[in-house]
Amino acid sequence: MRAAIQPDLDLAASLFEDLGRTTRRGRGIVRDSYGAGEQAAHDLARSAATAIGLEVEIDAIGNLFMTLAGRDRRAPRIIIGSHLDSVPQGGNYDGAAGVVAGLCVLSALRRARLVPDCDLAVMAIRAEESAWFDVPYLGSAGALGLLDPACLATPRSDNGRSLETTMQQQGFDPQPIRERRRLLDPSTLRAYLELHIEQGPTLVAEGLPAAVVSGIRGCKRFRNARCVGEYAHSGAVGRRHRHDAVAATVAFLSHMETVWLRHEEAGADLVLTAGELFTDPALHGPSKIAGETHFVLDLRSLSEATMDAVATEARAAAARIGAAYRVSIDLGATSDSPAAMMDNRLRARLMSLLERPFEMASGAGHDAAVFAKVGIPSGMIFVRNENGSHNADEAMLLDDFAVGTRALLAMLMDFPL
Amino acid sequence: MRAAIQPDLDLAASLFEDLGRTTRRGRGIVRDSYGAGEQAAHDLARSAATAIGLEVEIDAIGNLFMTLAGRDRRAPRIIIGSHLDSVPQGGNYDGAAGVVAGLCVLSALRRARLVPDCDLAVMAIRAEESAWFDVPYLGSAGALGLLDPACLATPRSDNGRSLETTMQQQGFDPQPIRERRRLLDPSTLRAYLELHIEQGPTLVAEGLPAAVVSGIRGCKRFRNARCVGEYAHSGAVGRRHRHDAVAATVAFLSHMETVWLRHEEAGADLVLTAGELFTDPALHGPSKIAGETHFVLDLRSLSEATMDAVATEARAAAARIGAAYRVSIDLGATSDSPAAMMDNRLRARLMSLLERPFEMASGAGHDAAVFAKVGIPSGMIFVRNENGSHNADEAMLLDDFAVGTRALLAMLMDFPL
Repeated sequence: MRAAIQPDLDLAASLFEDLGRTTRRGRGIVRDSYGAGEQAAHDLARSAATAIGLEVEIDAIGNLFMTLAGRDRRAPRIIIGSHLDSVPQGGNYDGAAGVVAGLCVLSALRRARLVPDCDLAVMAIRAEESAWFDVPYLGSAGALGLLDPACLATPRSDNGRSLETTMQQQGFDPQPIRERRRLLDPSTLRAYLELHIEQGPTLVAEGLPAAVVSGIRGCKRFRNARCVGEYAHSGAVGRRHRHDAVAATVAFLSHMETVWLRHEEAGADLVLTAGELFTDPALHGPSKIAGETHFVLDLRSLSEATMDAVATEARAAAARIGAAYRVSIDLGATSDSPAAMMDNRLRARLMSLLERPFEMASGAGHDAAVFAKVGIPSGMIFVRNENGSHNADEAMLLDDFAVGTRALLAMLMDFPL
Repeated sequence: MRAAIQPDLDLAASLFEDLGRTTRRGRGIVRDSYGAGEQAAHDLARSAATAIGLEVEIDAIGNLFMTLAGRDRRAPRIIIGSHLDSVPQGGNYDGAAGVVAGLCVLSALRRARLVPDCDLAVMAIRAEESAWFDVPYLGSAGALGLLDPACLATPRSDNGRSLETTMQQQGFDPQPIRERRRLLDPSTLRAYLELHIEQGPTLVAEGLPAAVVSGIRGCKRFRNARCVGEYAHSGAVGRRHRHDAVAATVAFLSHMETVWLRHEEAGADLVLTAGELFTDPALHGPSKIAGETHFVLDLRSLSEATMDAVATEARAAAARIGAAYRVSIDLGATSDSPAAMMDNRLRARLMSLLERPFEMASGAGHDAAVFAKVGIPSGMIFVRNENGSHNADEAMLLDDFAVGTRALLAMLMDFPL
């Protein structure tokens, strides 16, 4: 199948408008995972799929599959997926853009009466955001049998109702999660593709409409790092006699910035963030040397080796700088999530389809990471977006969306795997 | 008058014991300014003074003068002063040591039937600690007519009762404070001497029992410094696109440590402390780049010029580092308290009286700074003390107290001014 067909952008425009109108609450978008907002988005997607003439199916845990039948219906299928939930007061595009892209690609193929080799399914995935139930990827990881059943007891962040109760009230069945039962067999999947808005400012800064995602960064996070020194009078204790937790923490974090620069100069992918840092409000004071700080050190990279190396350097620096400042810097345990690389052939093909090829890592997690984790070749396209994501000011231009969606369509018409 | 007389250390030991027994509440000492605890200490001092045979007088605002009459009763007198209040759950020695030292010196002179040239008055000063009414030096500054009358409305930190009401309930008269009326005329004072425990660890570290205080450090404090960047996803934004308030604050404070080291190497007296530093608990998060920090930067020095120079360097660094990190570092206004140098001749004489002469700055404020401020030649002796002050674990050895008190007595017996 080869033809100069274009994605159905009129459909995209009207779907984005309908989604925004239906799920906006005040300034922002509220599509609560397994709640009324997410369901409204699913209903809109389902109606559009039916209008296009796609087969519609919903699995036990609520994921919606909208399928264009292929020539060989037994051949492993390609999923074009993304999620339809949002954070509270989120934007209209995080998640939804990928489902809309899939629908306007299948709409174009259908209109052109092109029949693909294998089934092409747009998967509107449930509950990707951890904002509501604290656990991300409930829909994709649930479908692949990867969820810890304990997550069913997680209370929803606002109303306290458990995930299990919430699913049941919405008419879904938590039993597969309780049994770790797979609803999707990886051997029946040829590939997973996802278009998503970029959640950072890189494409805006680079002046590019879209990019290929090289992989999804893993994360190694010292969640409960602590520096313990001794409280003392700020005027009465000289430098050599201090046990100043703030001074030591500053020296440690300043050193970690040099570690970051060194790895970056050597070409490694790495971001390093201390996003929480605080002295104890019950004990600190303007004329006191601080006796304690708490902080988070978050390392992210496409490379496990880089994260391991930086974590090792952090532990060595904590010991060395702690001793030099006569304090104890205890980084504590890390919580780790592994990096997920996108498939090399899919990356290369997508790059060849962009007029101005650009590849970048995703720092945030995506359902694509879950599919990649079980060995399904996965590919992702980022679309430029102003003002970051997870806020009411997400701003994706339809022209940029069109660039990403055309690449998706072109790849499907000559699939490299 | 010259003789090998010794301070009355038995009196010191029994007074410290009585003070501790009478004002201990749980682990710590509570001698609340203008409250029952402080009054109990005044009562003990007054009884001791009467037993020694000193003249006793209380001024309108409650300061207690215990005087050994001199040969010329019209000659300007020497005050040996310190305060008898404590912070809540403080220690037994901060403040009280100076009053006890004065009493055991006058007791020795009295027993030896030595009559000094001029009156020697031990002044038990009211309300030096700012812990109760937020304003320090109420007794000394009040006696010298230096208080802002607005302080009378300050509520006591625990029960909310105003200073004015509290004074009246204790039988004292706030009127002189309201009128800024001097109760002590500086022209009638020859000198002010104060013995105090060291509030830091220097003498412990140096292995010395006592030191001469060169001066009381002034303070220039950026009380409300703030760094404003932009919150963003910690994984999704690369280094060059961040507006990371923590990274910028770390770079700024790290730079200020190098400024401190440079001034210290050049021989300047300086301490520099960020005792409060925090991201916003309502907005920060483990996977977020922080968009804001608040911190305090506290500079202290014996030299106004040094504080001015460091504050200027801080402002320049804030602008430069803020720009480099694409954030705004706003240090805000400083609150300043001036440095107070001790009298050079008193310092030199006290040094000559110590077996192992050692001079150091006081980082904490003392009533001596108030007397120095109005031009009264002032001198201070520090006595070694373990575990810092303003806590229940203050630990001064009577042997160390004796070293400081002997120097005080020796100086009074051959006064240099």
